[in-house]
Amino acid sequence: MPQSQPSLIQKLLDEFERLPGIGPKSAQRIVYWLLNNEASNSERLAVAITEVRQSVHFCSRCFNYAESELCPICADLTRDNSMLAVVSEPRDIVAIEKTATFRGLYHVLGGALSPMDGIGADQLNVAPLMARLADTAISEVIFATNPNVEGETTAGYLARLIKPFGIKTTRLASGLPVGGDLEFADEVTLGRAIEDRHEM
Amino acid sequence: MPQSQPSLIQKLLDEFERLPGIGPKSAQRIVYWLLNNEASNSERLAVAITEVRQSVHFCSRCFNYAESELCPICADLTRDNSMLAVVSEPRDIVAIEKTATFRGLYHVLGGALSPMDGIGADQLNVAPLMARLADTAISEVIFATNPNVEGETTAGYLARLIKPFGIKTTRLASGLPVGGDLEFADEVTLGRAIEDRHEM
Repeated sequence: MPQSQPSLIQKLLDEFERLPGIGPKSAQRIVYWLLNNEASNSERLAVAITEVRQSVHFCSRCFNYAESELCPICADLTRDNSMLAVVSEPRDIVAIEKTATFRGLYHVLGGALSPMDGIGADQLNVAPLMARLADTAISEVIFATNPNVEGETTAGYLARLIKPFGIKTTRLASGLPVGGDLEFADEVTLGRAIEDRHEM
Repeated sequence: MPQSQPSLIQKLLDEFERLPGIGPKSAQRIVYWLLNNEASNSERLAVAITEVRQSVHFCSRCFNYAESELCPICADLTRDNSMLAVVSEPRDIVAIEKTATFRGLYHVLGGALSPMDGIGADQLNVAPLMARLADTAISEVIFATNPNVEGETTAGYLARLIKPFGIKTTRLASGLPVGGDLEFADEVTLGRAIEDRHEM
């Protein structure tokens, strides 16, 4: 079929379709929106994309995303430096921060142990974590990795590594999602909720 | 809440959230994807956005999007220049081209008549349409505006304007969507399908 639209539009459609969660219909909607709206919208988007890739790197201490040497959380002196939450990815920090229940610091592993995918401790930010534990006055490490096989394996492995430091290690609770229906919970989650029941 | 991620990331999230069909979750997924993947992905996207806004304009003849003076369809000498399909937006051309049932040329109005929104014939590419009809050997004008109030009003208005030219004017058929269920068709569509029934 000969093309019905300029090749630059097709090129932009292709680029948008590469993004996660964007199909051909969404890409088309976005591209036509960009063409129909003021050029400043497209400009700001293009500039923001370029700036993020040029100026955002990993925090030298916790491996969260950062613009300066330290990320906003490590640079925040009001945070409780006795608590350290270990997460897989920077996006997990965003999720935990939204809960406003944790005021400590973070350490981003950059993934989770997965022998099947060839991801061992060397591929993760494990050595820098150990260095942080030796250096500072951390009294508790919370493993906030995902509640799946890789996340549990990673938490278990790190807990054993950290044991000699004499630091308290904890794991996020598993159980029923708040507001969820008991009958719709999968059996593993419900089983865990029963095992981990607490006195009222 | 103090921010947990660099302000450049927040800025990019904001820009993505402005796009149609992109919510906060999708924006975050896309931004982290861009950060996690090779920088060349972000670069190509940023460049494609900039290029489209810089180099894409309206076809001087039909008002479809074009990179050169004429759009790919107007520039295609194999198209049938005796048939002209009048559409509201360039994206309607893409939809019609996909059907591969029309080999004529197009004319993009840039919208539809809508007195409520203050859109009259002066806001649409109606004068250039009249100029095209006077100049060329067009034998049929197909109104391919949307099957809604604005689209029907526009088609009716233009059909009256074109009448003096002695050119045949036609309208896209309305009726049941192919592959659809009769019982789920809305009553207006089903009513139209009955009215416009044809002999077998």
